[in-house]
Amino acid sequence: MKPVFITAICLFCCHVSFSQTTDDYIELTDTKPFDDASVWNKLPATPQIGWGSTDIRYPKLNVPELSKDNTWKTKAWKGERVNAQAVIRTKTDMSDVRITVSDLKSGSSIIPSSAVKPSFVRYVMTDELNKNGRGACGHRENKADWDSSMVADVLYKYELKEIKANTAQPVWIQVWVPQAVKSGVYKGSLTVSGKDFTDLKLNMEIQVSERELPLPNKWAFHLDLWQNPYAAARYHQVPLWSEAHFEAMRPVMKLLANAGQKVITTTIMHRPWAGQTQDHFDSMVSKMKKIDGTWSYDYTVFDKWVEFMMSLGIDRQINCYTLVPWALTFDYFDQATNRILFVEAHPGDDAYEDYWGTFLKDFASHLRRKGWFERTTIAMDERKMEAMREAIKVIRKADAGYKITLAGNFYPNIEPDMYDYCLAFSHTFPEGTKQIREKSDKFSTFYTCCAEARPNTFTFSPPAEAAWIGWHAAEANFDGYLRWAYNSWTLDPFRDSRFRTWAAGDCYLVYPFGYSSIRMERLIEGFQDYEKIRILREEFTAKKESAKLKKLEAAVSLFAAENIWTRNATDDVASARKVLNSF
Amino acid sequence: MKPVFITAICLFCCHVSFSQTTDDYIELTDTKPFDDASVWNKLPATPQIGWGSTDIRYPKLNVPELSKDNTWKTKAWKGERVNAQAVIRTKTDMSDVRITVSDLKSGSSIIPSSAVKPSFVRYVMTDELNKNGRGACGHRENKADWDSSMVADVLYKYELKEIKANTAQPVWIQVWVPQAVKSGVYKGSLTVSGKDFTDLKLNMEIQVSERELPLPNKWAFHLDLWQNPYAAARYHQVPLWSEAHFEAMRPVMKLLANAGQKVITTTIMHRPWAGQTQDHFDSMVSKMKKIDGTWSYDYTVFDKWVEFMMSLGIDRQINCYTLVPWALTFDYFDQATNRILFVEAHPGDDAYEDYWGTFLKDFASHLRRKGWFERTTIAMDERKMEAMREAIKVIRKADAGYKITLAGNFYPNIEPDMYDYCLAFSHTFPEGTKQIREKSDKFSTFYTCCAEARPNTFTFSPPAEAAWIGWHAAEANFDGYLRWAYNSWTLDPFRDSRFRTWAAGDCYLVYPFGYSSIRMERLIEGFQDYEKIRILREEFTAKKESAKLKKLEAAVSLFAAENIWTRNATDDVASARKVLNSF
Repeated sequence: MKPVFITAICLFCCHVSFSQTTDDYIELTDTKPFDDASVWNKLPATPQIGWGSTDIRYPKLNVPELSKDNTWKTKAWKGERVNAQAVIRTKTDMSDVRITVSDLKSGSSIIPSSAVKPSFVRYVMTDELNKNGRGACGHRENKADWDSSMVADVLYKYELKEIKANTAQPVWIQVWVPQAVKSGVYKGSLTVSGKDFTDLKLNMEIQVSERELPLPNKWAFHLDLWQNPYAAARYHQVPLWSEAHFEAMRPVMKLLANAGQKVITTTIMHRPWAGQTQDHFDSMVSKMKKIDGTWSYDYTVFDKWVEFMMSLGIDRQINCYTLVPWALTFDYFDQATNRILFVEAHPGDDAYEDYWGTFLKDFASHLRRKGWFERTTIAMDERKMEAMREAIKVIRKADAGYKITLAGNFYPNIEPDMYDYCLAFSHTFPEGTKQIREKSDKFSTFYTCCAEARPNTFTFSPPAEAAWIGWHAAEANFDGYLRWAYNSWTLDPFRDSRFRTWAAGDCYLVYPFGYSSIRMERLIEGFQDYEKIRILREEFTAKKESAKLKKLEAAVSLFAAENIWTRNATDDVASARKVLNSF
Repeated sequence: MKPVFITAICLFCCHVSFSQTTDDYIELTDTKPFDDASVWNKLPATPQIGWGSTDIRYPKLNVPELSKDNTWKTKAWKGERVNAQAVIRTKTDMSDVRITVSDLKSGSSIIPSSAVKPSFVRYVMTDELNKNGRGACGHRENKADWDSSMVADVLYKYELKEIKANTAQPVWIQVWVPQAVKSGVYKGSLTVSGKDFTDLKLNMEIQVSERELPLPNKWAFHLDLWQNPYAAARYHQVPLWSEAHFEAMRPVMKLLANAGQKVITTTIMHRPWAGQTQDHFDSMVSKMKKIDGTWSYDYTVFDKWVEFMMSLGIDRQINCYTLVPWALTFDYFDQATNRILFVEAHPGDDAYEDYWGTFLKDFASHLRRKGWFERTTIAMDERKMEAMREAIKVIRKADAGYKITLAGNFYPNIEPDMYDYCLAFSHTFPEGTKQIREKSDKFSTFYTCCAEARPNTFTFSPPAEAAWIGWHAAEANFDGYLRWAYNSWTLDPFRDSRFRTWAAGDCYLVYPFGYSSIRMERLIEGFQDYEKIRILREEFTAKKESAKLKKLEAAVSLFAAENIWTRNATDDVASARKVLNSF
């Protein structure tokens, strides 16, 4: 057994390397009722550990139930990430606590300890759905109007200075089974050690199948979690687009690449979403109106951001926001006045055509020079139909080859124009449309946002709902999933996931420095499940194994949109995954 | 006799061509006491005209005294501009009134009518000196605190739609004697004609001497009236630095060139004077901080403005404001954020050195490429000594060859650094300093501003004080004169010369479209007198005509700074000019 050197370069997997760390931070205080000392006093004198469930956000101050079985047993494909959760409970203070893991061995074959990532789970302030239970949209400036509580979400370091008496401390374990291992049952252990207590030990046992999940960048799943580089610059207090900024984003975006992300979020105007996030998006392209009335464009930032993301393996698609923003004012640097000015123009106006048509022509040339034109899309989200039609005209006039994407409701009139059409959850393409789109290599995906009470990935959402999303994509025959915010961090994202709008956690899935979350890892589980289903569907169809296919599709069918309202997502994911892992 | 075609291309002179005209405007109402109908009724039934004085701003509503002599007689050098004022008085309405002038003839020699510029004098709202009589500085937001009145100042068109009953209407006549005419007595006439009245006629008689005044661009007088292109763009509602903007400025700046202006006012930062004028000055150079931390500079606007001014003949010096502005914040375009940001830095700070040192190096290269480096100066005005010393260090470090100018008090420590040192009125160089400066081809000039109750060029200042300025330069051995505002127009400059600070008219000497003013033309008279004195001094000294020199210097000696307080400027200018014209 040896300590896990998480900071070492990982030769076998794509785990994020934690070369940067936050100082240990003090969590906010939970004001909810909790188990008092009399309950905790019933526990044995020394701290205990036991396996729990990844479906549960263990309350910090309540005594957790622990499995009596010291061994976590699971199945995995080669290349798959599998997660488990253990929980420490203690009625005495523990200090200098550290998790170490062993290699997992199957005869002479090894899953090295570097492929195992242990994290202490930490707590963040959350709130709740809207009082009427219908989603979580709208303003919530007055925090007192919402019931707040501390929930387990952050997957933090493998060391903690202290675990206080009368608390639960969950431990998240992720094993990223290397592609190259042999199938077999791999056994290993984890140890929690520290001052003032005897080592706590648990066993791990992974049955690795013959099947193989491709590396994330080979996944078919069309994942589009919107990145916000502006939030990273602010959080880390580094100059925007400086080397320090990119270094700060590296672990965060590498984590995203490892989730199978396909799309680079870029912005080609000031505040495409009217600054709805803590840190507004700005334009990655500078537009200059010269005194002779002509325009010139500077793509330095755009290029650097795109190249950075591509260097991490996120290189399939570049989405450019947007031609139809929430506020129809468009920024440029005015050479004459040395100031940033704004054109106010509606799609259809001459000024709109002048601003965008001229830019899009130049942009197309630039993208072609970079070899990016074919993977770039002009992206819009949920605007008025008429405005979008006018915008499409301007795009097509500038360069007929432009790809266009939309996240919104279904509009039959513009559907054929959409290379990547992302429908709001529970919206569907009409019969046959999806198939036509498939033939012309167009993506058809769906998104969730504050509108969905469930499935969702708020910091208080049941963790299984995150995994449910991948299954739903498989069920509804979507190519992928979009979420509007991957890292639009709040002011103090580690401590408080609440924001001035929407339910807590809506603005971000992961934490600064590349610390993941229960939500993010369960989402990835769903994406992996989607890939596994896709592979099995192909295999069973090719081999005409209709009984297996039927069994698989029966499991998949649990994830119809309407089922999220009437069934139990946690149970459905658990039972369906059992089926999936039975092949 | 033929009508004057002011808009025709003038072959003989440099008069401003009025291709643009304002619509006729309605003047504001004067609330001062005035001659009532009983006074006006004593006048003859039909309108009269007579010669008046250029020293008088004739009240609009009072019956003016007219000279009984119908002939204006004056002396002029070849190339000199001479001014006269006539006044119409009427107790009946006059309409479609127009001034025409004849050629002035001397035997077969002609001063063509195109060299004669007649203008109806129009009225603008003014205020007064500070109540304590000590200058005119400070805020005057509340106009009611100041006694306001309408004064004659604008030299407007040669046509008027109407002259109302019971008003005086002054007529300004300027003859720009061509360089090429023979000496002799030239005679001509002016006629005021229109509906409802018989033509009014006056005679003009100019005795042209053998002496010749050079063209204004050959004058030695170092004139520096600060131009404000930003005011022109706003007044004319044309895009800044557009062709329309330059066309709007052309007559205004041509008028300035004809006054012998030597210096182009340029700005190399945002709001060098903290926006004290109606239209703040902005930077004519764009500075971009790139994401790699380096700087790049765009000189498009700077170059275009400088080239425009040079094309008008103002090409001796380019003053760049400023390294030590009133507010120590410095603007730049930030490539990362696509925004204009500001560095706050004091001379001596590293950030100051980074911002300015880097720029000044690049600027020097640019100026050298354009062939302008030798005539460019880094300009400062009246800041703290220590700040200026630090700024000088940064300038010298960037390029030891930079010329530096200062308008302010006398500081012996930095005097040797100043290529063009402009002292506040009544400040003097210590004994011998001026001579040392002269030997190293450095300019030593003076300025007036709101601090001077007199001499000044407010819209209410006695007109002769403007001419006094040129004579004072000759008396105090200054090389020229600086005024901080040539055309920092108020919101409605034709109607209201009052501003939120300082006495009325301080912000501008001339009017939009190139309409001149009584003040401006009397100033130019003083500059001409300075040149004439210079020429005569050289001649008398060379020819050892000490009696003449003594007579001339006696006249010049009237214009010592202290005399402005104790003597009568109008009388002194009149008597001194008689002496000047006696040679």
